[in-house]
Amino acid sequence: VYEFDRATDVSAVAPGRYRGSLDPAWAIADKPNGGYLLAVLTRAAITELGPAYPHPLAVSAHFLSAPERGADVELSVEPLRSGRRAAQTRATLWAADGTRCVEELVTAGTLSPTADPWWAGLPPVELPAPEECVLMPVRPPNARFDVHLMGVVEERLDPSRLSFTLGEPDGIAEVRGWARLADGRDWDPLSLLVAIDALPPATFPLGWMGWVPTIELTAYVRALPAPGPVRVRQRARLVEDGWVDELCEVWDSRGRLVAQATQLAGVRIPEGRAPAAGPPAGASP
Amino acid sequence: VYEFDRATDVSAVAPGRYRGSLDPAWAIADKPNGGYLLAVLTRAAITELGPAYPHPLAVSAHFLSAPERGADVELSVEPLRSGRRAAQTRATLWAADGTRCVEELVTAGTLSPTADPWWAGLPPVELPAPEECVLMPVRPPNARFDVHLMGVVEERLDPSRLSFTLGEPDGIAEVRGWARLADGRDWDPLSLLVAIDALPPATFPLGWMGWVPTIELTAYVRALPAPGPVRVRQRARLVEDGWVDELCEVWDSRGRLVAQATQLAGVRIPEGRAPAAGPPAGASP
Repeated sequence: VYEFDRATDVSAVAPGRYRGSLDPAWAIADKPNGGYLLAVLTRAAITELGPAYPHPLAVSAHFLSAPERGADVELSVEPLRSGRRAAQTRATLWAADGTRCVEELVTAGTLSPTADPWWAGLPPVELPAPEECVLMPVRPPNARFDVHLMGVVEERLDPSRLSFTLGEPDGIAEVRGWARLADGRDWDPLSLLVAIDALPPATFPLGWMGWVPTIELTAYVRALPAPGPVRVRQRARLVEDGWVDELCEVWDSRGRLVAQATQLAGVRIPEGRAPAAGPPAGASP
Repeated sequence: VYEFDRATDVSAVAPGRYRGSLDPAWAIADKPNGGYLLAVLTRAAITELGPAYPHPLAVSAHFLSAPERGADVELSVEPLRSGRRAAQTRATLWAADGTRCVEELVTAGTLSPTADPWWAGLPPVELPAPEECVLMPVRPPNARFDVHLMGVVEERLDPSRLSFTLGEPDGIAEVRGWARLADGRDWDPLSLLVAIDALPPATFPLGWMGWVPTIELTAYVRALPAPGPVRVRQRARLVEDGWVDELCEVWDSRGRLVAQATQLAGVRIPEGRAPAAGPPAGASP
């Protein structure tokens, strides 16, 4: 049994009711990772839907209250509609004290193992070879907490986008790199929900190293990923009024786009603090 | 009273229950526009939340069954959580026969009228002046149905991205142009939910002129828009296995990013049909 399957295991306790235990490894400091919570919830949703709709196609979650790392949780699933190509459900993750933590809507269906792109407009992000990238540690230099997630998701990030780790943020709101599950499990539609939220925030290269709690996360799984590591790119487009968006794209080892995501997150930047200066005008990032 | 306010009017009939009537003008052929349904539902959600959380910040909807154009509908709103900066609700739009048509999750809060971007990475899309753009008609040339929505949303699209209207699709999955409400009402956070889904599908320039029904639509409203028309850009990134995504961005008359959206939609392209050839390699779209 692989770590991801153990960490997202849920047991049916009644029709539409599940129980699970959040795995402390899939967390950052004392907070479970948002993509991991998405995967746990979606596993309950997919289980409830049954084998006719095995893959999440579109998942939209709103984060209400962060559950504790390692906590026992309950999950409720409400089927909304079943159609020919897709079925929709709502799923909610509850803390043991009855606090509603995450609610999501899921459209599920079947991704074809033989599908090819009819039209693809987004070439895979260019990356140095994995061995030329920087392996992310569980305890980043100068950090005051552990990124436990890096023990189960192996990330090798493009060093040209990591100057913020040296205290020299470059003002380019993009992080990118390779990701694989550390125990060798291949990616699949469910675990890609972790890949789309596993990179450091794209606000780090802007010089803001603070916490960026997700309030909304939407993921589309577009194809069954081929075995091997995925390429991941995460970018921000606007930081304003206490909020930042991040756009994430994931390509498999064949260079195919297999997942896309967008999130809105809170960011509390102190008054008077300016972003890192970006590249000179005309420079190609 | 402006058209948009009339068309999205909902009446409370009980705690958390509303009634409304879909306006036939906010439709394409016999289907209400997805962004319009989002606005009606979100108006009920925001009304239920009350004045402490006046603006939708993040809205994620899954479309289950298209209601009829002009139909009477019921709306239910379930508050999920109220916090200091934001509140979350779930809202559902029902047809008169009890069919669940659309369900959405909303995070609402207050956008500051004095906020400035802390960091902005997405310059406004370049467009010819509105008078050099092409006004979209209610009955497009060669179409077999009316795009009623163009009677209430005035769109002037960049002619360099409209070769598909001449039967010569250019293979660039992008449409872009100016949008304003036809009766002169200014954009606001609620009506921006229409702006993010009002352009022709980005699959048209790929040579596929068929129906593209939305199954998931997520919108972020990032700032209070200034008076005047907005710039809108809609792009697709992948068409595969019967699905297409579209990414939409909206800038106000000051050139500020005020809304962002992503959607996943179904697309049924017949076997053997190829996309329009794109620009030659190296050409800048």
